[in-house]
Amino acid sequence: MRVDFARLQSDIEALSEIGRASDRGITRRAFSPSDMQARAWLRDRILAAELDLYEDGAANVHARLGWDGETPSVMIGSHIDTVPGGGPLDGALGVLVGLECLRRLRELGCTLERPLESVAFSDEEGRFGGLFGSQAIAGVLSPAQIHQARDLDNLSLVEAMAAHGLDAMQALGARRRPDSLAAYIELHIEQGPVLERRGARLGVVESITGLFKWEVHMIGAPNHAGTTPMDLRNDAFTGLVEFAAAIPRLLEENGAPQSRATIGRVELHPGAANTVPGRATWSLDVRDSDPQVLVELGQAMRRSLSAIARRHGLMFEFEVLSEVEPVACDPALVELIDRCAAGLELERLRMPSGAVHDAQIMARITRTGMIFVPSLQGRSHSAAEWTDWADIEAGANVALRVLAELAGVSSPS
Amino acid sequence: MRVDFARLQSDIEALSEIGRASDRGITRRAFSPSDMQARAWLRDRILAAELDLYEDGAANVHARLGWDGETPSVMIGSHIDTVPGGGPLDGALGVLVGLECLRRLRELGCTLERPLESVAFSDEEGRFGGLFGSQAIAGVLSPAQIHQARDLDNLSLVEAMAAHGLDAMQALGARRRPDSLAAYIELHIEQGPVLERRGARLGVVESITGLFKWEVHMIGAPNHAGTTPMDLRNDAFTGLVEFAAAIPRLLEENGAPQSRATIGRVELHPGAANTVPGRATWSLDVRDSDPQVLVELGQAMRRSLSAIARRHGLMFEFEVLSEVEPVACDPALVELIDRCAAGLELERLRMPSGAVHDAQIMARITRTGMIFVPSLQGRSHSAAEWTDWADIEAGANVALRVLAELAGVSSPS
Repeated sequence: MRVDFARLQSDIEALSEIGRASDRGITRRAFSPSDMQARAWLRDRILAAELDLYEDGAANVHARLGWDGETPSVMIGSHIDTVPGGGPLDGALGVLVGLECLRRLRELGCTLERPLESVAFSDEEGRFGGLFGSQAIAGVLSPAQIHQARDLDNLSLVEAMAAHGLDAMQALGARRRPDSLAAYIELHIEQGPVLERRGARLGVVESITGLFKWEVHMIGAPNHAGTTPMDLRNDAFTGLVEFAAAIPRLLEENGAPQSRATIGRVELHPGAANTVPGRATWSLDVRDSDPQVLVELGQAMRRSLSAIARRHGLMFEFEVLSEVEPVACDPALVELIDRCAAGLELERLRMPSGAVHDAQIMARITRTGMIFVPSLQGRSHSAAEWTDWADIEAGANVALRVLAELAGVSSPS
Repeated sequence: MRVDFARLQSDIEALSEIGRASDRGITRRAFSPSDMQARAWLRDRILAAELDLYEDGAANVHARLGWDGETPSVMIGSHIDTVPGGGPLDGALGVLVGLECLRRLRELGCTLERPLESVAFSDEEGRFGGLFGSQAIAGVLSPAQIHQARDLDNLSLVEAMAAHGLDAMQALGARRRPDSLAAYIELHIEQGPVLERRGARLGVVESITGLFKWEVHMIGAPNHAGTTPMDLRNDAFTGLVEFAAAIPRLLEENGAPQSRATIGRVELHPGAANTVPGRATWSLDVRDSDPQVLVELGQAMRRSLSAIARRHGLMFEFEVLSEVEPVACDPALVELIDRCAAGLELERLRMPSGAVHDAQIMARITRTGMIFVPSLQGRSHSAAEWTDWADIEAGANVALRVLAELAGVSSPS
């Protein structure tokens, strides 16, 4: 059993034209005109495939096969919105592979013990906060959250959806009962360099990263760069430097091999070349797939920061910007994906997902599995994002076999 | 021989009211309405003291005593423009002490062998680049430099001066022949914490710092903070961290005890919490009063940066933003200032000036000496800038004795 790869390829190419600016990648922010155009295109493709089209209150676009409104369904999904200037595969690949799997099983005339759903979730990438569609289905959205969601131009989600005749509050009704789902599968590009570096063609995701994101402040005193001797300074930046230099040790002593810590943003105040910084503010993003490791890394980092502050006569403060719990994939699904890949003789690698995905949210209400395909040079959120067609085909065929197994397909062919 | 301290105090208080915003310090940017008001006030004070008023082509305001157009003069000066939100003393103190010295010598009926000039230089603080008035007198301004000078709002110096009926190009005519000057003296607040920490009431400046200011770029590759393992990163920030951590060692190995190095501004790109920085850009301000030490520090820092770049697979680039040669004060003037302070039984300290001053420019055409008074807690460029009145009085009396000696005063009193 194989997907119609020429058709999948043509779908990927067609969708990638929507929102494309010649040299600046693809931009389909949630509920923007290009996102709406992509949704319309997707609806047409679902109907052309003679699958059932369903849109829930969060504007998630579902294709359904064998739906009876009673039997728990097997869902495969991802998203078709993009970051600004994104690539053709992040999200879109998972949606189009899902569509192709359902289309193929339908045209093969298969019988299903369980219905199949392929879903494109709304606003995964975060124009209005992110993971909106999957949170709606998992029932973790509050009315306040929906009301307060705004994009960087201060346009509210409510207004943005209303502009297309959609009522954002209906997202509360998109909630699915856990017993209406048998499993959730997501195929996604890795967005990292590991599969390529290890020569593997498919990643079997065992866990999805958790993270904490802090904004850290180190406070000293601003001084004249010329008149203040080195030993009489209260330089806030030295606190950041000492902390940043300690990160490898902190990860080795308190983390796991897959632990990651990143300082991606730094601001010094007053920020003049001739003034010793009186305040340093930076972002700290720490990830691991083990909740206990995250707790220990958080404690170690707090201890390190406060020791550094004491040692240099600085003050230290931090705010938690976000915390996401890690999620373990369902062990039976990990085995199933691995077995299907083995059946296709694919070099595969069991690995954590370092990025956050809709799968993380779906894991709250059903057992979840994830399939990664390699990202060339680990590139993502970029026009240069790509995956070899052969790897896309291999990944799609693994997804097809996984879905067929989960849906209890009996094939006439 | 003593200054009239009550009168000096009243002048300091009066000038500090011009450009004052109750809680945001004093703002008199060069050629702004508040600067023009301060100039008018100063002219009135000069005329009220029955000193000769002279304004040159750079709009420097001179008070003159015993001027004959032939005998080389002894000049004392500083500036009355301020940084935005500055304090009452930076610059203004030197100008008002100079005025008080001339006023006092005049009213004592002293005879002078050499004329005395007290000068308020235009735009020392740099609204249009800085050190404009002293550069004009030293003859180091070019017509192109005058034409190109603009403030941060893109207003040109030419326009700003024209708004007050002044022709900026006339600054070229403010040039003084070196043989028209016998010496230049400047009294200034220290702007640093050294005098206060050492319990000294007066600083005898031996040299004025030189500096180089670089913009340094470390270039790696931006990557996803979640999907890129620590060992597969090309994190530009790690290059900055390693360099910043090496600064104390670089100063110890290649610098002198008074060497200073400051990173005051940092920018990471793309600058998102969840992205490994692909580029780090920072300012590096390095100061010393020995030109050879500056050369060696520059070489050591380049070597360190390129070793760090190699070690981490990063690229490194830098641009020189500015270079200022250090200046040695005239040894005979250093001795004279020291002797006058000793005569007043003042605890004094020989020290370098870590900040740049008009004196640095004047040293190009005449022998130069500088007097520092202590800055409370080293504060400057701030509304909280202050010096004890007793220290101001002591410094003014030292300046008076130094000028009297240099001008060959014979006192009837």
